[in-house]
Amino acid sequence: MKLTRDGKHQGAWTWGPRGQGAILLVNCDRDNSKSSAKDYEDEEVQDSRDLQDMSRMTLSTETPRDFFSSHQLLLHVATSEMDKVRVFHAGRHKDPSKYQAVLGPQQPCYPLELPGGQHSTDFYVEGLAFPDTSFPGLISLRLSLLGTSSPDLPSVLVFQDSVTFRVAPWIMTPNTQPPKEVYVCSIYGNESFLKSLTALAKKAKCKLTVCPSKENMNDRWMQDEMEVGYIQAPHKTLPVVFDSPRNRGLKEFPVKQVLGPDFGYVTRGPQTGAVSDLDAFGNLEVSPPVTAGGKKYPLGRILIGNSSYPSEESQEMHQDLQNFLRAQLVQAPVTLYSDWLCVGHVDEFLSFVPAHGKGFRLLLASPTACYKLFEEQLKQGHGEALLFEGVKRKKQLKIKDILSSKKLREHNSYVESCIDWNREVLKRELGLTERDIVDIPQLFKLQEDSRGLLKAEAFFPNMLGAPAWQVNMLVLGRHLGIPKPFGPVINGRCCLEERVCSLLEPLGLHCTFIDDFFAYHVRHGEVHCGTNVRRQPFPFKWWNMVP
Amino acid sequence: MKLTRDGKHQGAWTWGPRGQGAILLVNCDRDNSKSSAKDYEDEEVQDSRDLQDMSRMTLSTETPRDFFSSHQLLLHVATSEMDKVRVFHAGRHKDPSKYQAVLGPQQPCYPLELPGGQHSTDFYVEGLAFPDTSFPGLISLRLSLLGTSSPDLPSVLVFQDSVTFRVAPWIMTPNTQPPKEVYVCSIYGNESFLKSLTALAKKAKCKLTVCPSKENMNDRWMQDEMEVGYIQAPHKTLPVVFDSPRNRGLKEFPVKQVLGPDFGYVTRGPQTGAVSDLDAFGNLEVSPPVTAGGKKYPLGRILIGNSSYPSEESQEMHQDLQNFLRAQLVQAPVTLYSDWLCVGHVDEFLSFVPAHGKGFRLLLASPTACYKLFEEQLKQGHGEALLFEGVKRKKQLKIKDILSSKKLREHNSYVESCIDWNREVLKRELGLTERDIVDIPQLFKLQEDSRGLLKAEAFFPNMLGAPAWQVNMLVLGRHLGIPKPFGPVINGRCCLEERVCSLLEPLGLHCTFIDDFFAYHVRHGEVHCGTNVRRQPFPFKWWNMVP
Repeated sequence: MKLTRDGKHQGAWTWGPRGQGAILLVNCDRDNSKSSAKDYEDEEVQDSRDLQDMSRMTLSTETPRDFFSSHQLLLHVATSEMDKVRVFHAGRHKDPSKYQAVLGPQQPCYPLELPGGQHSTDFYVEGLAFPDTSFPGLISLRLSLLGTSSPDLPSVLVFQDSVTFRVAPWIMTPNTQPPKEVYVCSIYGNESFLKSLTALAKKAKCKLTVCPSKENMNDRWMQDEMEVGYIQAPHKTLPVVFDSPRNRGLKEFPVKQVLGPDFGYVTRGPQTGAVSDLDAFGNLEVSPPVTAGGKKYPLGRILIGNSSYPSEESQEMHQDLQNFLRAQLVQAPVTLYSDWLCVGHVDEFLSFVPAHGKGFRLLLASPTACYKLFEEQLKQGHGEALLFEGVKRKKQLKIKDILSSKKLREHNSYVESCIDWNREVLKRELGLTERDIVDIPQLFKLQEDSRGLLKAEAFFPNMLGAPAWQVNMLVLGRHLGIPKPFGPVINGRCCLEERVCSLLEPLGLHCTFIDDFFAYHVRHGEVHCGTNVRRQPFPFKWWNMVP
Repeated sequence: MKLTRDGKHQGAWTWGPRGQGAILLVNCDRDNSKSSAKDYEDEEVQDSRDLQDMSRMTLSTETPRDFFSSHQLLLHVATSEMDKVRVFHAGRHKDPSKYQAVLGPQQPCYPLELPGGQHSTDFYVEGLAFPDTSFPGLISLRLSLLGTSSPDLPSVLVFQDSVTFRVAPWIMTPNTQPPKEVYVCSIYGNESFLKSLTALAKKAKCKLTVCPSKENMNDRWMQDEMEVGYIQAPHKTLPVVFDSPRNRGLKEFPVKQVLGPDFGYVTRGPQTGAVSDLDAFGNLEVSPPVTAGGKKYPLGRILIGNSSYPSEESQEMHQDLQNFLRAQLVQAPVTLYSDWLCVGHVDEFLSFVPAHGKGFRLLLASPTACYKLFEEQLKQGHGEALLFEGVKRKKQLKIKDILSSKKLREHNSYVESCIDWNREVLKRELGLTERDIVDIPQLFKLQEDSRGLLKAEAFFPNMLGAPAWQVNMLVLGRHLGIPKPFGPVINGRCCLEERVCSLLEPLGLHCTFIDDFFAYHVRHGEVHCGTNVRRQPFPFKWWNMVP
């Protein structure tokens, strides 16, 4: 008599390549297009597609013919775990929609009616909850065999067996993973941006999904509303959208347009406001696989931005979000310092691109690199060259004006110190050296935010003005969609574009500069903020690591 | 500039003999006898004794004289951890009661006012919460140095340092640890029991604390109301009473009589009823140090009793209690099956005694051993020998009557199967062999409980009658206080006493049989249920293990 998963007996759960234990997916997609519920929210198996999201468990018995007249078999789960799992019994039904829910919330124990002799019966198991602070992710299904020696006596516990499942963690994909689908909003005024993006997606051979204006309520920040990751078991891999509690115009997009058949959904954090800018997912990125301090992170490390110390003014990513990310265990989050920025997102100063050698480079926004470039141009007699040439309604600025502004130097020196702080954290926590980092020329300016605090951001077009943040780019394989910087045109070419190309093309990358000036840049975001990407899952299986 | 604990820089926390990291005690004693609060509940340092419960942290600075005119030092804690810790700043005060609380609930950040030059200042840190499901026990105190280059710009983060503390777990002490203090209730009718216990405590050289009848409200079950363990840091060790949510007559005893100067207190579970018999701490024991499955448990493993599967009738230890015990990490709990007993406590069928070899033996109640003994006596012509000789108002029973009762055989065969189940679990989870186990002759009978369920317990004196449960004994070093069994007297000596002595005396133990018949046995408990012991902490330091 034994409980097995894929023919293996899996009573304990251990990590690593020699580890053992069964895996459960949270059945968080919606295979029934007529339903508004996620699959785990109902007590039915929708169809064979829904069944594929579940883990099969087999009970094999070999007993004397009359064995079950004096014995009773029970399948059960601890009451502390019963709200995290649901078990369906196939029984003799062939149609999965007839399978009976036998364990789950309010159902911790199921008495089995079995014939004697040699017999085998299947169960299908779905997870109902992701790992989180108060749920480490392990669920044991237990089988108890009771014997009744006499009707006057209580039953005797004769035998127990169990299968331990770990609920698969939600996993993020870094820029180094091949892209499968790009998301973007259609809004009034971004037609040419959409056209450029369509061409780029085509080059990168990935699907483009456009959220129409009637569904985005003029909210263009596709990056901030969600993060598309995945969950994986040996039998099935599902993309899963993590819906940010930010909830502006795109609020309904993840649940109404992304969640669907074989596309799961999860959310955390307050759903009724009380969020800060740091809860938007431009502030949630992930590194490529790294080794740091002797420890391997084969699925990379999550990067989030926070304040450097708590104060009345400081902002942090909501604790519920941080707790959820940490509880997934496999991409140990690193906390960066991003609260010095007006919007406060890590994607405003960093990005990763695929490259030879280590497999990637970290791109960091660098005011110093920008000053250095402009000083070179000044020396070569291009001090009169104009920024923003070709941008309508934009006050044009000369290189020499940029270089002579003491205030702008001070602002960028401050910004540089903030980025340098993060540079050191990233080097330490991701095991990087200077050779793994590329400095992308980029200027910032400080601006009072709505609370009167001085924060860094791109200059407004009607003010001092500054080039777009090129680091805020869309990475589709080797194709980069970079915000068009509108830098000074020298010898017929924008010197910022030229510099960025000379830094990135030798790595095997193709740079496409996309004009996002009026549709995104002037509203404090760039190409990355305005897009989102579903990427291919890692070839590395999460259960083969040791967190 | 650095933050140190005992002169060591401790930014990370790692387990094991080569581990590093600072340790924090929950300041859960009450050094101020005038206060009704535990020390961590107020924002003051009571006195130098209270200060000794805290961990000292030193900030050393060496700066140019005018350094702090352009720099600011902040001490801070994550807002998610601020309700778990309080930090006092000694400043220039000599009197600890003048130390200022600078970090704690609602106070995540403290700006320091420091002179330039070489300087050193002390902080004292107390824990406010034990590890639990949603708090892994780690707290980082962080120091941030901010630089102000210009009044027009935000401060720049120049330097951070941190000390990570782990809150010391609550640790239980097994019977193999030397006893320091015995607790017992004074009630109407237990005078001779008290007298015997006083003599035993004197022999074992430990203090006896008697809870007077006006404070125990006739609740005699001292074992069930509390469990005395300890918490330990390199600078201080505190006994800590874990107060059961059982809350019968002895409800106020732990908080009013045990909690005090250098004696801490913790409780968990519902304080307003909704508890079961399994939440009483006769159902909470701990093994001596063991090695099982290749894993070392140098502080032993906690043992609790539960049901074998969830049903409408089944009882379990409250999840809050189980979660708390598990979260302490260092004595990984083992779940036994005890719900077959009327009261449902593990101390009804097992005990540990110190012994040569492995250092201990596991004693298990054994109906088989009892039948075997009585059959030997029958063969030797003692079938007419009487049980309960010398017990007033007790129906006397003959050995041959016991042996001829088919019903009693059936009952005890059922009990034996329940104990055998636990025997196998204990062998596996504690790494024991049969040679580590001593079978103590003991009979049970089944009885309908208040819900009409058939459960095992000692026979009532007016019913079939049975010897007392000798395994429910008080272990004070090598001195055992064993319930007097009132077994058949053969050749002038009780054959049960003789058998128990012959099993335990060769291990170097001294058996004292205590008459607990009318004061405890007839009310479904024995010596162990009626007493409690504070024991010496382990010489092994918990931070040297790897959980």
